[in-house]
Order: sequence, then C-alpha cells, then structure tokens
Amino acid sequence: MAHIELNNDLPGIRGLMAYRPETEKALNALADVLLRDDNNTLTRGERELIGTYVSYLNDCFFCQNVHGALAGHYLSCDIDQIDAIKNDFYTADLSPKMKGLLAIAASVQKGGKNVTTGQIEAARNAGATDTEIHDAVLIAAAFCMFNRYVDGLNTWAPQDRQFYVNRAPQRAQEGYQSSVYK
Amino acid sequence: MAHIELNNDLPGIRGLMAYRPETEKALNALADVLLRDDNNTLTRGERELIGTYVSYLNDCFFCQNVHGALAGHYLSCDIDQIDAIKNDFYTADLSPKMKGLLAIAASVQKGGKNVTTGQIEAARNAGATDTEIHDAVLIAAAFCMFNRYVDGLNTWAPQDRQFYVNRAPQRAQEGYQSSVYK
Repeated sequence: MAHIELNNDLPGIRGLMAYRPETEKALNALADVLLRDDNNTLTRGERELIGTYVSYLNDCFFCQNVHGALAGHYLSCDIDQIDAIKNDFYTADLSPKMKGLLAIAASVQKGGKNVTTGQIEAARNAGATDTEIHDAVLIAAAFCMFNRYVDGLNTWAPQDRQFYVNRAPQRAQEGYQSSVYK
Repeated sequence: MAHIELNNDLPGIRGLMAYRPETEKALNALADVLLRDDNNTLTRGERELIGTYVSYLNDCFFCQNVHGALAGHYLSCDIDQIDAIKNDFYTADLSPKMKGLLAIAASVQKGGKNVTTGQIEAARNAGATDTEIHDAVLIAAAFCMFNRYVDGLNTWAPQDRQFYVNRAPQRAQEGYQSSVYK
C-alpha cells in the first residue's frame, strides 16, 4: 500500500501522476524528450535500455519491468535477453558504444562523482558522441529520480512480468505524455 | 573541466542546459513546479531547503550553494544558519513538520526503499499532509537527478560561496524557466 492516499488504484508512477497532475506534466515531458524524441542518434531501444539498467541497479521492480519491456519491444529481445543484459552487459550482444554508455550510467547510479575520465574516453573511443554521453548521464540521473519517486512512496506494482511485456507495444505507440490516462 | 565540450563557460547545470536546450525545458519546468509554484502549502523556502539538504547529502557543491542561497533568501537565514541546518537539522530552529519531511528526504537520497512507515507517520503526526509528503519525496528524488547530472558531467562551479548568495534574489525573482539566459 502506498505511503499516502492516492485515491486511485493505478500502479507505480502512474498512480502518483494521477494523484499530482501538476508535477506529472513536467515528468512526462522529460521522459518523452529523453526516451522518445526522434532527434537523437541513440535509438529508443538504446535509451530505454539505459533506463532499465539503472532501474535494475536501483532495484525498482516497476520501472525495470516497464522500461525493460519497452527496450525489449524496440530491440526485439525477450525478457530473458533483457535480464541477461542487466545481469552482465559486458558479455551481452551489445555494441561497444552501448557498453561504454552503460558503464557510465552505472557510475551515475552510484553518484555523479563516480564517473571517471577513463569511462568517458572509453565511450568516446567506442564511437559515442558528446551528446550521447550527455544523454546517457541525464537518462541515468533521471531514473535515479523516477525510481526513488516510485519506491519512496511505496507504490504497488503488478508482479506478473508478462503484464509489462503485453503493455509495451501500446506504450511505445502512445508515448509518455498520455500515460496517466491509459 | 566538464567531461564533454559544452561550447560555453556557464557553471553547473546552466552550462548543461545551454548545451542541450531540448532537455532544458522539461528540467526547468520540473524545478519551477516543484520549487516555485505558489499553489503549494510548503513555502518556497521550505522546498528549497529540502533540495539544499539532499544536494548536501549528495555532496554536490553547485546545487547545495545555489539552492542553499535561495533557501536563505526566502527564510531570511545567512550561510552559517543554512550550514547548521545541513549539519544537523534535528537541533535547528525548524518546525517539527519540516524535520519530519527532511528525515524522509534523507531516506530518499539513500534510495526509495529506505523511507519507512514510521517516518511517514512521524511527518503526518507533525502536521504534514499527504501532498506535502508527496512533494518532499519528489523534490528529494529530483535533486538526486540534478546532482548526478551536474557532477556526472563534471561541470565547474564558482568556489566563492558569496557568489551564490549575491545571485539568489535575482534568481528568486526570475524563476527557473529563464535560467539558461541569465
């Protein structure tokens, strides 16, 4: 049960957003520009994967399943493949650039000062642009917010992971701006 | 020196926002609704203080000084008084409600699951409404993002703390929406 009375039975961040539409708009606008905007050299799948990985590191069940299912949808991976990436992205079938960005994201999850010059250089040597490094850091930082918001207020989450997989195509189509209303 | 080439010499988050105006809008809209919106029973000073305290816990020099100076501006405190609150808010001259909300914010900083039912009840018993608890959690979570963004990209910050104090009245007047352009 959530720590506060949400007056709705929506799961995870959706219940919080319906409770507080004043902050919902800015949060969804941020998710939209970070994860969906087509003017980006990282694919939607790659960006969702960064969010998934950080949510996994923060142990946020709702976020890692919502965004893991979306990453799987975009990247044509099933749950087991997404889980394998979360457990060890270094040995996963990912580009060297994505591995470099995920290493940076993992440092951001611990705290901003954990990002090293060596990690930045490694990502750059693997082909990451400055804008991609910027976005990876901000996506990782943003999920440190979303995860804390969802778990800090003790929201509930469907436990059947297939629920998230089934919803992903619709969410991918509609984007985040409308997530409260679905 | 920042980890990426920002093509500007603005400090902290301002340099990042000027570099990436696509994400700046959503971030400033979030800061504005969380910290400045007048439709809130927490004062601007109280909300800035929550952000300051979390930035202090995250050891983010730029954010704790920007928002500490703003909190001081709104609450009519000097730097020493803000520092005293950061160092030990329990013995500071704050309302029991604010102490309850700061205790929740400190747990959010560690991770959302650290917030306890006891902390929620204590804040509520001290007069905090559900919306105030919601906002305290989201402000704390948002600063876990802002701090990681600022430090994860290794931005520079003016070291003279009076710089932030001097700027606070102007920032208080103008709000966050326009922060890139000042």
